[in-house]
Amino acid sequence: MAEELVGNCLIGQSGGPTAVINASVAGVVAEALNHSCIEEVYGSLNGVLGLLNEDFVDLAAESQQAIRGLRYTPGAALGTCRTKLKKPADYDRVLEVFKAHNIRYYFHIGDADSQETAAKLGELAKAAAYDLRVIGIPKTVENDLPATDHCPGYGSALKFIGATVKELALDADAMGQGDLVTIVEVMGRNTGWLAAGASLAKRRDHPNDPPHLVYLPEVPFTNEKFLDDVRRVLKREKHCVVVASEGLVDKDGNYVSVETSATDTAGHAQLGGVGEFMKDLVESQVGAKARVARLGVAQRAAAHLASKTDADEAFLVGQAAVKAAVNGESDKLVTLVRGDGDNYTCETGLSALTDVVGNLKKLPKEWVNEDGVSLNFQFFRYATPLIQGEVTVPYDNGLPAYARLGKEGVNKTLPGYEA
Amino acid sequence: MAEELVGNCLIGQSGGPTAVINASVAGVVAEALNHSCIEEVYGSLNGVLGLLNEDFVDLAAESQQAIRGLRYTPGAALGTCRTKLKKPADYDRVLEVFKAHNIRYYFHIGDADSQETAAKLGELAKAAAYDLRVIGIPKTVENDLPATDHCPGYGSALKFIGATVKELALDADAMGQGDLVTIVEVMGRNTGWLAAGASLAKRRDHPNDPPHLVYLPEVPFTNEKFLDDVRRVLKREKHCVVVASEGLVDKDGNYVSVETSATDTAGHAQLGGVGEFMKDLVESQVGAKARVARLGVAQRAAAHLASKTDADEAFLVGQAAVKAAVNGESDKLVTLVRGDGDNYTCETGLSALTDVVGNLKKLPKEWVNEDGVSLNFQFFRYATPLIQGEVTVPYDNGLPAYARLGKEGVNKTLPGYEA
Repeated sequence: MAEELVGNCLIGQSGGPTAVINASVAGVVAEALNHSCIEEVYGSLNGVLGLLNEDFVDLAAESQQAIRGLRYTPGAALGTCRTKLKKPADYDRVLEVFKAHNIRYYFHIGDADSQETAAKLGELAKAAAYDLRVIGIPKTVENDLPATDHCPGYGSALKFIGATVKELALDADAMGQGDLVTIVEVMGRNTGWLAAGASLAKRRDHPNDPPHLVYLPEVPFTNEKFLDDVRRVLKREKHCVVVASEGLVDKDGNYVSVETSATDTAGHAQLGGVGEFMKDLVESQVGAKARVARLGVAQRAAAHLASKTDADEAFLVGQAAVKAAVNGESDKLVTLVRGDGDNYTCETGLSALTDVVGNLKKLPKEWVNEDGVSLNFQFFRYATPLIQGEVTVPYDNGLPAYARLGKEGVNKTLPGYEA
Repeated sequence: MAEELVGNCLIGQSGGPTAVINASVAGVVAEALNHSCIEEVYGSLNGVLGLLNEDFVDLAAESQQAIRGLRYTPGAALGTCRTKLKKPADYDRVLEVFKAHNIRYYFHIGDADSQETAAKLGELAKAAAYDLRVIGIPKTVENDLPATDHCPGYGSALKFIGATVKELALDADAMGQGDLVTIVEVMGRNTGWLAAGASLAKRRDHPNDPPHLVYLPEVPFTNEKFLDDVRRVLKREKHCVVVASEGLVDKDGNYVSVETSATDTAGHAQLGGVGEFMKDLVESQVGAKARVARLGVAQRAAAHLASKTDADEAFLVGQAAVKAAVNGESDKLVTLVRGDGDNYTCETGLSALTDVVGNLKKLPKEWVNEDGVSLNFQFFRYATPLIQGEVTVPYDNGLPAYARLGKEGVNKTLPGYEA
């Protein structure tokens, strides 16, 4: 039994929201209230910005229905940001803020990139002999977090992409044109996890079902092969449904399409526009009509079609984080561990935060068929369980009734800080 | 009581599919089977193409669960097309096909444009003394069909657009950036009916809720006003959600953005790209970060989030078409007639097809506020009832299980035809 550490806990959200990131907040809050060693349950507003600016809200003061509502509410209820802690002074400030509020448990919900913040805070607290337990909670629609079998947020994004591709394909098929190419541009940055998931729209044992062609960053893109693929499908089917990862690269590793030269505040290239690029190619080279759907942020926000499996697991990792911290763990990431049996089971595990930071999990190349544009049974076996079940979302006046937090502020005790 | 006309009935779908166009087919089939004067119930494959090519399927041979499944299945189950009957010979051919199959009832599901086909067929049959009853059934997400209070397909598109804008706004709000502009490009061609519907995402009495700015084709667009609007909202809110109709025009009536100079086979300009156009403006002139979601065909295909009111009304207009024809009506369009009371009620009516063809119903300008970028209570009173209720869609293996027709072909009796 770990030594009891009495104090307050703090939750922060980081990076892009997902359909279920708030379910992890709900899991942390629900579990934290089970432990008497945790006195106050705070949320940091807009992730590390809240840490720097001492902008906390009292989550235990929220109504129970608001916290329950987080289990089906998209966005990031506490706010998030893409800012990183940069200077050593930033970290000193955060530790000062933690001490001022007796924060002894810090839960950081984020992707591989942002878990660096959690890892560093853990290290610095140790160096300063400040007793702090830091646990990372995984989230990202992109599923590129290592150490975990899959990542909360991914299953719901797949469910929305799969359903949408199925619907777009029915629409295109109905047009009865021999020359209609439907291009769906999908997020996912440098990995094809999300684009691959569009394949779930195929019926079992119907390899010719749409989506007919799936282009992944893991397979170098050439215009010639793409045009040949499209021509072949148009000849065979009445139309052609193409799914394209935003991060497609050529054989030299250069992006096929970069929207602007701008990078975001975390230093990533701004991807996008590959759908329009393909449309131009198809219309000029094949002479077929092409149309593009660019689902954009809807892929990570469409909570009205969230996967119940995913939402439940997102809640579970929140609970597990608190349990681990209370049990004396620190500097760990909660992971999802899939059972070995034929029927899907999943429980949580722990992995060192330092093993996660800076690493990305790529889609295994051996899950892609030789044609380079379809996935084999290994992918289907992996992904199918993640989209099972539907979350019940309440409706008000015809639209989903998502939760809003009251956000009762915690009094600031320190002078302001210029980041 | 009308003279009994004994013979077969035929249903054809035309133009772009909607989330509920198949519900109208289900309504026709269900009602047709109630009347002994209707012997066979046929469907024309790919609309007028099926009429020309004698490509019919036997809808009475479909299983009951397949027909029931049409009530929640997107796309156009019989196939559709954008082809129009052009030459007099085309019409002669269709009448010949009708005679060969003893078609005495023809139901044409389509928008204002395509009801021309139905109107002409009715005229020509009369001229040829061929006893034929022709009834048009309204459909279009664009809601621009005159004579009817609203159009089946519109409510479901609004529900999807409203929910998606709500979700995208939660995502954007969570980012906590003072300079984030989210642009949602919405269909609708030359009317703002669909874009206006995004306003349903606002809570009652919260005019500052997203979407903050809605640009309609009914209000001439200028870059200067747009940039002023965006700057004003960014100053007031943490972010700005913009909804843009694809068919925005400047004060001279020229499209702000036309994707290519190409026109579709019905002779319409290919709209689209206004989102990217706005993004470039915002990034270069305001210096804010902008992101675009282009929902594309998902707006008319997202049956997983269809409006129950809309789906029920789509079924109802199918039933009403058969009842009218059996009662001796012809050359009419079924319309939806809203009750006068405070609580929403709706029944069907009939309007002359000739009153519909070539007319478009514009969004009333007096429903737009003086700021030109928001809607007043008259629009909310009109549109809110149309998105009420959720259709129960069965799920199979995590994705919506949409119906597929068996499509048992009807034997051809005529020589082929070169259109």
